Amino acid sequence: MVFDSNLNGELAVFAGRLADAARCETLPRFRARATIYNKAGALFDPVTDADREAERSLRRMIEAVYPGHGIIGEEFGALRADAEYRWVIDPVDGTRAFMCGAATWATLIALERAATPAIGVIDQPFTDERWTGSAGGAQYSHAGNARPCETSGVTELGNARLSTTDPRREAYFSADEAAAFAALAAKTQVARFSLDAYAYGLLAIGELDLVAEASLKRHDFAALAPVVEGAGGVITGWKGEPLGDCASGRVVAAATKELHAAAIDVLNAAPK
Amino acid sequence: MVFDSNLNGELAVFAGRLADAARCETLPRFRARATIYNKAGALFDPVTDADREAERSLRRMIEAVYPGHGIIGEEFGALRADAEYRWVIDPVDGTRAFMCGAATWATLIALERAATPAIGVIDQPFTDERWTGSAGGAQYSHAGNARPCETSGVTELGNARLSTTDPRREAYFSADEAAAFAALAAKTQVARFSLDAYAYGLLAIGELDLVAEASLKRHDFAALAPVVEGAGGVITGWKGEPLGDCASGRVVAAATKELHAAAIDVLNAAPK
Repeated sequence: MVFDSNLNGELAVFAGRLADAARCETLPRFRARATIYNKAGALFDPVTDADREAERSLRRMIEAVYPGHGIIGEEFGALRADAEYRWVIDPVDGTRAFMCGAATWATLIALERAATPAIGVIDQPFTDERWTGSAGGAQYSHAGNARPCETSGVTELGNARLSTTDPRREAYFSADEAAAFAALAAKTQVARFSLDAYAYGLLAIGELDLVAEASLKRHDFAALAPVVEGAGGVITGWKGEPLGDCASGRVVAAATKELHAAAIDVLNAAPK
Repeated sequence: MVFDSNLNGELAVFAGRLADAARCETLPRFRARATIYNKAGALFDPVTDADREAERSLRRMIEAVYPGHGIIGEEFGALRADAEYRWVIDPVDGTRAFMCGAATWATLIALERAATPAIGVIDQPFTDERWTGSAGGAQYSHAGNARPCETSGVTELGNARLSTTDPRREAYFSADEAAAFAALAAKTQVARFSLDAYAYGLLAIGELDLVAEASLKRHDFAALAPVVEGAGGVITGWKGEPLGDCASGRVVAAATKELHAAAIDVLNAAPK
């Protein structure tokens, strides 16, 4: 293994190794009728074997190579949460997509320094696509071919391609959030759903222009910021606040700062 | 080229050649900022270069090899529509997915005999997945690996994974249809959206259990029936009528006849 003299380089390489390791646990279980757990009673929130086994594997790797680093995982909680370097991992973001055979789930890996995301990886094993973002920019690779990420230049809502995971006032949106999203969708060119974190990857390569979601947790969005920002996009809370302060879980990402500002205006026009 | 002594075999091979040819026109234009046409004024209905060029290519191939066969295409209309054998083609089903970079659009190719679908192909070039159905059954291939299709054994709505392209009372659903879909979704385990014809492929390999849609035209559903039925599933109109009589464009596909009957009951409980 080659260690870059730049610490970010070494850590970005390790983030890629974590994504490779996650594939070993997730891909063989995709479309293989993996056992579905229901961890929260009435709330439907399946967690597959893939998610649990991959998180176990990634935690072992981090503890072996960077024993001083913190770890925050969706399944097994926080370890050394106040360390300077902290890995935020979600091996299967989009468990509903996973259980429905749709290749729009992703493995999310973030490295935060001083509680700010510094490296982000979005990985889709079935399609062999990976986005890696850091302060140096963002890169997309598909089947071994890599290129820099760049968002579209779309600045107006009327030209924007919008996405959210579920537009209904049920799974993720409150009634007010659903109304705000519908108002935004009415001003855009087209809306697509059920893409989970994969939507932010599509935004980073210029294929979507706008993503607005609610009910996201830190492990859902920490990996997204370095990718979106490294590609030239903007990602904040719905009020424009930095994601680190985004206790609401409402996230909006846009291809350009103009489109971002226009979306923020619409999302905040109604009380929420 | 090997000609099977069985006419269906020969025609199924030719259907695969059509899907191969369509890939040559669609795949290079996917995620390449293809020009979007708007063919219907206020109604948003983009058609890409990919769709038009692929349909031209497929029409030339059919006319060269089977000059007596009829052709019905989404873009360029009908030719010899009352021929015994009739090809129904839609090179890019899911143009909105295509323009948003989502690999859930598909090339749909059907061969109808006496106005009944006999062969159906659902092809996704980016993921290299193809479903081929005929009276002999249905087959799924991914990156060159082929296996028979088989739907899940799910018989109860509470265990069902449901899909529709857009649940809102806008793009495809009337208010009544959206309400009927919402009633159905409320009884199922999970719902996913924006999968277009790819959803029927997932149903054919047991990854989804139920698909309910409206506003489908002949070129949208002709290729689906041989795949779904060849995999052991059921596909009809929302009242249970055969698809050939489905003037409403409301289509429901299910993994089992029990699940199909349960879905039909819910979809017809409210006036539409």
